[in-house]
Amino acid sequence: MKICIINPNSDEKMTAAIQKTARDNAADEFEVVCFSTPGAPPFIETYADQLQAAPGMLHLLQENIKNCQAFVIACHCDPHLDAFKEISPVPVVGIGEASMKLATMLGHRFSVLSATAQSVPNKEALIRKYHLEEQLASVRAPDGKTQLSDPEDLYLDLAKKAMAEDGAEVIVLGCAGFTGLDRNIGKKLGIPVLDPVICGLILASGFARHGLTTSKIKRYRGRIPE
Amino acid sequence: MKICIINPNSDEKMTAAIQKTARDNAADEFEVVCFSTPGAPPFIETYADQLQAAPGMLHLLQENIKNCQAFVIACHCDPHLDAFKEISPVPVVGIGEASMKLATMLGHRFSVLSATAQSVPNKEALIRKYHLEEQLASVRAPDGKTQLSDPEDLYLDLAKKAMAEDGAEVIVLGCAGFTGLDRNIGKKLGIPVLDPVICGLILASGFARHGLTTSKIKRYRGRIPE
Amino acid sequence: MKICIINPNSDEKMTAAIQKTARDNAADEFEVVCFSTPGAPPFIETYADQLQAAPGMLHLLQENIKNCQAFVIACHCDPHLDAFKEISPVPVVGIGEASMKLATMLGHRFSVLSATAQSVPNKEALIRKYHLEEQLASVRAPDGKTQLSDPEDLYLDLAKKAMAEDGAEVIVLGCAGFTGLDRNIGKKLGIPVLDPVICGLILASGFARHGLTTSKIKRYRGRIPE
Amino acid sequence: MKICIINPNSDEKMTAAIQKTARDNAADEFEVVCFSTPGAPPFIETYADQLQAAPGMLHLLQENIKNCQAFVIACHCDPHLDAFKEISPVPVVGIGEASMKLATMLGHRFSVLSATAQSVPNKEALIRKYHLEEQLASVRAPDGKTQLSDPEDLYLDLAKKAMAEDGAEVIVLGCAGFTGLDRNIGKKLGIPVLDPVICGLILASGFARHGLTTSKIKRYRGRIPE
Amino acid sequence: MKICIINPNSDEKMTAAIQKTARDNAADEFEVVCFSTPGAPPFIETYADQLQAAPGMLHLLQENIKNCQAFVIACHCDPHLDAFKEISPVPVVGIGEASMKLATMLGHRFSVLSATAQSVPNKEALIRKYHLEEQLASVRAPDGKTQLSDPEDLYLDLAKKAMAEDGAEVIVLGCAGFTGLDRNIGKKLGIPVLDPVICGLILASGFARHGLTTSKIKRYRGRIPE
Amino acid sequence: MKICIINPNSDEKMTAAIQKTARDNAADEFEVVCFSTPGAPPFIETYADQLQAAPGMLHLLQENIKNCQAFVIACHCDPHLDAFKEISPVPVVGIGEASMKLATMLGHRFSVLSATAQSVPNKEALIRKYHLEEQLASVRAPDGKTQLSDPEDLYLDLAKKAMAEDGAEVIVLGCAGFTGLDRNIGKKLGIPVLDPVICGLILASGFARHGLTTSKIKRYRGRIPE
Repeated sequence: MKICIINPNSDEKMTAAIQKTARDNAADEFEVVCFSTPGAPPFIETYADQLQAAPGMLHLLQENIKNCQAFVIACHCDPHLDAFKEISPVPVVGIGEASMKLATMLGHRFSVLSATAQSVPNKEALIRKYHLEEQLASVRAPDGKTQLSDPEDLYLDLAKKAMAEDGAEVIVLGCAGFTGLDRNIGKKLGIPVLDPVICGLILASGFARHGLTTSKIKRYRGRIPE
Repeated sequence: MKICIINPNSDEKMTAAIQKTARDNAADEFEVVCFSTPGAPPFIETYADQLQAAPGMLHLLQENIKNCQAFVIACHCDPHLDAFKEISPVPVVGIGEASMKLATMLGHRFSVLSATAQSVPNKEALIRKYHLEEQLASVRAPDGKTQLSDPEDLYLDLAKKAMAEDGAEVIVLGCAGFTGLDRNIGKKLGIPVLDPVICGLILASGFARHGLTTSKIKRYRGRIPE
Repeated sequence: MKICIINPNSDEKMTAAIQKTARDNAADEFEVVCFSTPGAPPFIETYADQLQAAPGMLHLLQENIKNCQAFVIACHCDPHLDAFKEISPVPVVGIGEASMKLATMLGHRFSVLSATAQSVPNKEALIRKYHLEEQLASVRAPDGKTQLSDPEDLYLDLAKKAMAEDGAEVIVLGCAGFTGLDRNIGKKLGIPVLDPVICGLILASGFARHGLTTSKIKRYRGRIPE
Repeated sequence: MKICIINPNSDEKMTAAIQKTARDNAADEFEVVCFSTPGAPPFIETYADQLQAAPGMLHLLQENIKNCQAFVIACHCDPHLDAFKEISPVPVVGIGEASMKLATMLGHRFSVLSATAQSVPNKEALIRKYHLEEQLASVRAPDGKTQLSDPEDLYLDLAKKAMAEDGAEVIVLGCAGFTGLDRNIGKKLGIPVLDPVICGLILASGFARHGLTTSKIKRYRGRIPE
Repeated sequence: MKICIINPNSDEKMTAAIQKTARDNAADEFEVVCFSTPGAPPFIETYADQLQAAPGMLHLLQENIKNCQAFVIACHCDPHLDAFKEISPVPVVGIGEASMKLATMLGHRFSVLSATAQSVPNKEALIRKYHLEEQLASVRAPDGKTQLSDPEDLYLDLAKKAMAEDGAEVIVLGCAGFTGLDRNIGKKLGIPVLDPVICGLILASGFARHGLTTSKIKRYRGRIPE
Repeated sequence: MKICIINPNSDEKMTAAIQKTARDNAADEFEVVCFSTPGAPPFIETYADQLQAAPGMLHLLQENIKNCQAFVIACHCDPHLDAFKEISPVPVVGIGEASMKLATMLGHRFSVLSATAQSVPNKEALIRKYHLEEQLASVRAPDGKTQLSDPEDLYLDLAKKAMAEDGAEVIVLGCAGFTGLDRNIGKKLGIPVLDPVICGLILASGFARHGLTTSKIKRYRGRIPE
């Protein structure tokens, strides 16, 4: 079984970090490859960034569909997940949807740590799309004033505030670029901290192994464009 | 004042029909132009169709931004409306959002008539995005067996079922391609039937005239890509 | 086309201010008249105030129905809007409903500035009536300690707090008496600030021009009492 | 303890029927009086009917406030309940709110039997106002074709349909005029059938006996107009 | 008429306090007995505590069913209320459901005062079960640092914060152990403070007196286990 | 890694079927054991049945906690899942929660096939508990008249109705006893049919492998009773 991870941005360093997390967690159970998206911006922040990434993402799907059993879209805003569910015959998992739905199984309310303050309402809109708004404690992002030199400390601090002030019982790392921070932050907090890449892999491998894929009769009826 | 209508598909005949409705309704109050989208599919039905239309739609925005005071996206599934609100300094109105929000002001519940059965869940997802699901009576579409030779009869019949069985008090024509059917169907039903192109113009002209445009501080922070 | 604005209170000064805003915004497109309500309290704050205004409001409707193409109820708590939609054959727009529904098209969440702290829960109940509670950032009102001598400064300060603490991206002036404050406050904040009188006019004139009015088959079935 | 029931319409026969139910159920525990509303229409069906009843209802409150420990508004659309909660120092119970909230304690979902098809959406709006829409199975009303000569058979038939087709486990009689039908229909159905007048009395007497009344600090701050 | 109150814990002192409140409020209208649950923990805080109480609670039901006309479960987390509604032929009222539903009739939003910070999310889950989340101002509990020596002062302070910061208009005492605090706290606050034991009795006696009990056709179909 | 499946009823035949499904799907990746619950009823249908199963279920947890890395509760009504999440240090997955949350990732709306008509409202209450009600197409159960001799045909027929009449795009088998029916029914329908036992294993193994377990700070704070 082979799983293809699409990093919707063009940042090769982030792609390498995602691939490392994925391979460490796949162990010997399945094969995993991760690609940066050609022509995409270096970081996906806005709706326009998502549009710019679309052609490259579609190209990656077409290139890899023959020898992959599942796709993971590794950006926490789940760009074009509906379109991918529609056109792909194999399962497609967005790390945003995966991580936030798993979070609801591990505690009363979850908080999402996001990369920038501007993305907070966009994340809230995504959370509502997945019908999760009542299980959300908060979306928190750095205020921009704090220095980013040590992301672990920065997000640990945000997570502590989410626990103390918003009632968060589970933390979701809201950016693929945060991959790898989960273990250290989780240990310090004493609550589950979810790496969305791992969540995406749990579900993509689970679906693929058991022959489950998107229902294609109505909302996601479609096929790969030639 | 000039309003630019973007028809996200490439069907020139539909563009002409939209433009006719728009000009008839604008009267002498404002100027209006309507464009087909270059490179877009002839009809937007799927999420992948929407992606295919994106580059052409962005091109039309860039071409017309200097001499237009508002944009209308004239496809009832409101493709890329979030991205357009984000990048455009002038107001952008989707005819789906406009028609369904106006419908809530004219009766207890509204039904949307959609072009194809496959699009019903997509429309439901859009309606939830706009927080309108509790004011929706139903989304109805032809079952595919009935012949399309006379669309007015076909949609009149659907509307009657929506009134009798679903409690609809207002009908929304759920496709820009239905433009012009509103008057005749409305007369026969005795309830408001909304042409989404007209709804889009009411709001786009209203916003533009009074200097109102999208808030650009957070969710829609952005600018036109160069 | 002539639009009749009913100010549900008896404050002639407020009526004059509303009429000035309305005429400035109508320009040469339509005629507009604004009336104070005979027998109504000088300010509508409570549910009992609304009841006291009812007979005078009905009288104004009966007097003007023959030569007006639409009515606007110019109190942000939309007193008796359901009854007016029911009995009037021409469209009736409440400035509360109009301003808050337009606000949802211009940003992620809106805040309403209300005149008194006691009215906050009443406003929240109204917002829920219109199914807008999930798009609301907050309802804010002066605490009563701050002096009202300069309303612009007072509401500018409230709006800033709504932006910083509640995530508001759009501000709705929650009282017809605030008419005219929108431009200055909007300029200072850099986000849309909606004058509800203008919002009411956009919709009332739009509905009237295109022959749209309330559906009269069920919820709003009725006619003018003799 | 004395409870005052206001029948918001002017139908003396209905007032007598309500009073009979009330006295039978009050037994010797408390005194109860029931008044028709002077100047009100003979039957409250529309929003305009409610407005017409307001002055008479207020008059009844003022007349009886000194020697009554609670008020019941005995029309299932709860006309002016917010205003009465606001101005009355003693508890005010609407039979619509009382019956539907008690229904949620006796089964999974309830159906309301309403007097006319036109009132169905108005009832739905009221149900949403009380946050009960997710516990509602349906609002059903006679289609107007069936003869009203034997109301018991008519509403028994509606209730059976609500059980079989809508999943109703509890039936709420949605009109004070149905008072007295509960026992017979309930016996035949084998599920709880709620007479709203009785529900109103349970709560009004319970509140009054234990010194509970409406919170007057914000939403319902007010006093009796002189 | 005799009402049986089951205190789901084994704390005899709390049982005595509940019985005192109940008898004082029943006056001469009905008989009331209150039992501690054999084998239950001294205090019900966790879901596991609830399970431990189940056998004893069932035993009390079986012992008393023949000569009681209604049951009240006197723990504010309403342990096993669904099972009791299912198996009991006479009405069963949970003091959590009773107090919070009555609260919604007395003000815009209510706050619940809970005994421990750990129980806050459990209470929130219960509130959502009863579809009351939109009418909730907050659940507040002592932070654990404040000394419990004078519970009245402690909960008075919490209630004041709920009013000032959360918009509470009604206070619900969220633990049967708080019985008796309502009058003093209510007087000091000037808003309704609900003793859940009294609320349970209002509804249990009301249901029993009028022959109302749980619908047994579907969700609560069942009978007493032998 | 070893996963312990608790079948909350005492039906050894069902336990064997669950274990077969589990072992077939675990392949060589992890070890799995499945136990019937001593003292439990042969089938869990009512809330009282659930209570009867509690002591045996707790006993199985205590017996197996030392050498299992995750628990699966294999009854689709998820009996005592909250209590198990609370007391178990390792992850606990209910097959109801697992199957219905995975269903939301594979299509627009899902339907649950339930074993008996009486359980439909109970299932609806569970679905609301998991905040999934808006993604539910329907809960369907045999009407009791159809013979159960061939369950595959019976449930295939129900699933077809859910697709045609309710808009279901995904089918969830709503009973552990249906295990093994998924493949055949799925092939005939052409849409995903979820075996809840498999869904439970995907998540239990995924959580266990990556060191994820329930947050124990508030709602689920607890430990195994001695």
